[in-house]
This record gives sequence, structure tokens and C-alpha cells, in this order.
Amino acid sequence: MDIKKPYLLFLGDAHDQLAAKVAIGIKQWHPEYCVGQYRMEGCHADCQLPDLDISAARAAGAQTLVIGVANRGGIISEQWIAVLRQALESGMDLAAGLHNRLADVPELRELAAKLGRSLFDVRHPSQTYPVASGRKRSGKRLLPVGTDCSCGKMYTALAIEKEILARGGKATFRATGQTGILISGAGVSIDAVVSDFIAGAVETIAPANDADHWDVIEGQGSLFHPSFAGVTTGIIHGAQPDALVLCHEPTRKTMRGVDYPIPDLAACMALNLSMAQLTNPSARFVGISVNTAALSEAEALQVMADIEQKFGLPTVDPFRQGVGRIVDRLAAL
Amino acid sequence: MDIKKPYLLFLGDAHDQLAAKVAIGIKQWHPEYCVGQYRMEGCHADCQLPDLDISAARAAGAQTLVIGVANRGGIISEQWIAVLRQALESGMDLAAGLHNRLADVPELRELAAKLGRSLFDVRHPSQTYPVASGRKRSGKRLLPVGTDCSCGKMYTALAIEKEILARGGKATFRATGQTGILISGAGVSIDAVVSDFIAGAVETIAPANDADHWDVIEGQGSLFHPSFAGVTTGIIHGAQPDALVLCHEPTRKTMRGVDYPIPDLAACMALNLSMAQLTNPSARFVGISVNTAALSEAEALQVMADIEQKFGLPTVDPFRQGVGRIVDRLAAL
Repeated sequence: MDIKKPYLLFLGDAHDQLAAKVAIGIKQWHPEYCVGQYRMEGCHADCQLPDLDISAARAAGAQTLVIGVANRGGIISEQWIAVLRQALESGMDLAAGLHNRLADVPELRELAAKLGRSLFDVRHPSQTYPVASGRKRSGKRLLPVGTDCSCGKMYTALAIEKEILARGGKATFRATGQTGILISGAGVSIDAVVSDFIAGAVETIAPANDADHWDVIEGQGSLFHPSFAGVTTGIIHGAQPDALVLCHEPTRKTMRGVDYPIPDLAACMALNLSMAQLTNPSARFVGISVNTAALSEAEALQVMADIEQKFGLPTVDPFRQGVGRIVDRLAAL
Repeated sequence: MDIKKPYLLFLGDAHDQLAAKVAIGIKQWHPEYCVGQYRMEGCHADCQLPDLDISAARAAGAQTLVIGVANRGGIISEQWIAVLRQALESGMDLAAGLHNRLADVPELRELAAKLGRSLFDVRHPSQTYPVASGRKRSGKRLLPVGTDCSCGKMYTALAIEKEILARGGKATFRATGQTGILISGAGVSIDAVVSDFIAGAVETIAPANDADHWDVIEGQGSLFHPSFAGVTTGIIHGAQPDALVLCHEPTRKTMRGVDYPIPDLAACMALNLSMAQLTNPSARFVGISVNTAALSEAEALQVMADIEQKFGLPTVDPFRQGVGRIVDRLAAL
């Protein structure tokens, strides 16, 4: 899967800023991928990009219209079809990370086929993957793991990629979820892969590389989440991480969607490390990333100081402080 | 998936006894499901059942022809089609656990549709499953886990189901692989389920039950296998096992298909127990099942005595000694 850049970000009729979080993520991490945004009547989101219609976007070089909005239910809205058709007719491909597929909308499928355009449904893997070999590959790999789902693993990975690149190093973010795929333009929606091939899919998207190159792989789920730990296990084994970063949201009391407590940080790190060392005996933690969005600055600093003192690892909120102190640790590996 | 019994076991042109291991397994564990066997010219396998042609099998009550043979590549052979058509025409359904699907052979698909017969491709899940809830269900559950793939987990589970039933208890084997599904007539081929739903599929096939009922769930893979540990993790969490049995093949030096050592038994038990206790804090090991097929009787007894002394758990080879001593332990739970 390789989505052609640059993009026109489609915000549709997003009823608020949160509904357009995919578009906002793309703009935040890769403004250079974005020529503009397309907003329909009644759109209440804004990526602070030029508002372009289809022909203006095409004239500005847009190769792909990316659906950066999720309506209720996460499906393709009837209201959008006319714009999506126009984009195909103008010469653009379409990309989306929604539950239903662009390719399952007959008029889009037929028009794309007739015009030779591609439809990228990034939530639905379009290729098959091998069973993981477990063989060591050249290059370095970093994997964020979490005390829960949705606690900052993608953000942390993107921030680390950006920091390594800003220092002149070699790094590639490897997406394992639909938002990460749309942000970076490649990857696999790992939770939709057949279970025998979880680790094999991760081996495939993070292949052998230069000895000083870092693959920064997007983590998913948590080893302590009773619904999704199988996915997490496969990612850890396929990633063969040299470096792990623990991601944590300190105000959450139970895990997302289930009545299970957030695990103890020490126990969580011990189990993740033990799992990681199966496929990379030299795996180690290099830092802790705390999502303190729900705390005041003073509370956040106190929480992080406590964690840092307890574990002796750089503890940061990537959003407040950046990940520089974690990246400092990578040089030693 | 509920395959109608009794069965006619189709051995086709099996070139040796091993090629018919699915049929042999069905006959061994459920002779009461089998009215006879169908062997083609050149078949070198024998389940020691009456040889019946299609009309004789139908007259004897056969509801389903089960393909109990795997040719090289595990696909449906051209040579078999005429017999399979005859079975459909006589009134039987078809069931197979092969890589390609009965339903992908146009003449079988069309004939079955015309006649209103069912085609069961048990390697390919035919339903979707929910995300696991992690909520405790009534009833007891036992799960064999392994130091490796293919070290006796299915055999151990079937032997434990049989022993509980022989003692007048309540037990149901819950299959998670194609051979187990064909042996028991129900289950899910868990390695073919989309990764987000591994634990949810196991919750579904082993639902709430009587307080004194044992689900004996077929384990898969190993937490120490770099290709398949994600599947194993999801099974453990979905199973919520009260009782774990460690399965081990003592002569193997590396794990199947990869250059990884067989894990230390103590480390293997510790990690499996830790994983199991997430969804069932009272999980514990109740025995160790050793596949000693490659050892002499004297060697086997020595190996088992050593393991039993080290771990203080009943240690048996189900094939040599039965699983009675393990089942004795279940009463205490």
C-alpha cells in the first residue's frame, strides 16, 4: 500500500474538530503532504489549510483525496459521493480508513475502474502476509507499548520519528493502524490481519534496513487488555524491538471498553520486556511517555517526576516537552 | 458451525496412514459418529470401519461426508470430485478442513446450492465474532498450553474430555483448529480469525455453562513461538481458564519451523500462568502432559518422573497412561 502524495484533505461535513482528527493528524505531522482542505456546507472543523475545490486542488498537484473525517458510525456518507466522484474524474485517487470500503460503493468502484484510479481502504489489508520467521533483521527498531489502548502510542512514535530526523538521523514511522497509515502513507491495519500473520505482517512492514536506521513502529493495544493482547503480542514479536517506550495515561481508572484496572507500571514493563526479549534478547526500555492532557502543568510535572524517580528512565509528555530526552538514549544502543 | 452426524469418512486415495490422520482422529475419539469409510482405488489408509459406497452409507444414515485425508498441498483433489458430487446427490452435506474451499469448486458449489446441501470449510470461519468482553462466565474451563506448536494439546484436551465424561461429569471439548472441529463437529479455526477477535471468538465458542461443567478448550501454538504467540495469547485470555495443563515434547530441540530453542518448562509455566491470571486470577496448573512417542517406555517413565518431582504436578503421557491423575485434580477446583 503506497498512497500517492500530496493530498487534498477531505473534511466533509465534520460536525466538530474531533470528527476531523485524522485530517488534523496528517496536517500536524506532515504538512508537506497537504495542498489544501475540502470542506462541505456545515463543516465545523478546520485544519488551517487553504480551502480548495477539486479543480484547484488538482491544479495544486493533489494526487489523492484523503477522507480525514469520521461521521457517526465511521462509514462513507451519501452526502460525500458527489465530491468523491469529482475527485476521481479530476485524476485523483481516494483513500479512507473507514469501516465500510470505498470499493464497496458501486458507483465509486465502477468509476475508479473505468478511469484507472486507485481506492485505498486502509482499514482493510489488501495483501496477504507470511508467517513470521523470527529471524533477526539489520537496522534498529523502537516500539511504544502501553498500559492501555489509546494512551499515546501513535503520537509518541510520530514524535520520535520526527525528533530523530530533525537531528539528521535515519528513521521511518511504521503504521499499524488506519490513522497512522493515512498520516504516513503506508503500513498495515494490523487488527484486521488474520491472526496467524500478525507478527509476519510487522516483519514485512519493518524490513531489514541500514544498521543506523530506526524503524519506529506504531504499537497497538496492551498486553493487559483482555480483548486485544493477542494483537499486542504479535506486534512485539514481529517488531523485534531494540528499544521500548512505555506509554501511559495516568488519570484513567479502567481499561478502554472493559471493567479491568490499569496495570501497575512495573508489572507492565516486566511483561512487555519479557515478551520482547523472545525475539530480541537485547530489548530494553529507553523511556516513559505520559499523556498528561487531563492534568494541569503542575500536576503533570509531579506525576512525571514521580515516575522518573521510580524507574530511572526519561519520563516525558511528548506534547508538553517533546521526546528529546528519550531519543538521547537511543544513541547508546 | 454445526456439522450433522453421523459421518461417512472419506479417505480418498490416501497414500499412507498419516495422510488420513484426520479420519483416524475422528474414528479414535468418536467412533459413534462414524457409519463407515470410503476408500478409492490406491488408498493405503484404513480406519477399520466398514467400507461403504455412497448409497450404502446413506442407507446406514450418513448425514455428512467428511474429507479425512490430506493430499500433498492440502487441497481438494480433482480425483475426488465425482465421489463428492455423488454424496451431495444422495443427500449428504460435505465437510473439509483443507486450504482451498469446497465452496470454491464451482461444480460443488452449484450442485450444493441446487440441492440445498451445506458445504463446511472448517478452516475458514463462516461467521464474525465480537471483541472479547473479558467478563467472567459461569462454568469451569481447562486449557492445555504448550512449550511448542504440535506437541499434544489437542490430544490432551480430547483425552481429558473423555475422562471427565467417563466419570459421569460434564465436559465439552471446544475445538480451535480444523482437525479438532472435524473430530467434534463444531468450533472455530482460530488462526484464521481476524486478529482483533481472537479472544472474542474463544469467549463465543466456550460460553457460560453449568457451574460444574468443564469446557476443555483446544490450545494452539505457544507463548514462546515467535510466529504464533499472538494467537496463543488471545486464546488464553478468551478461555479464562481455571485449569492449565502444560504440554511438552521432550526430544525436540527447536520450535517448529523456526530456529528458536524450546523454552524452559518453569519459565513457560510462569508466563502462561501470568497471562491466564489476567482474565481469571484463580488460574492454576493442574498437570503436565508429555508426548513421549519418540522415547522407549523406560526413558519415558524417567522423563516424566523427573518433571513430576521438579514441579509437584501429575505428569503423564495421555497415550501411555491416560489423564486420570490430571482429572483427579479438577475436583479440587
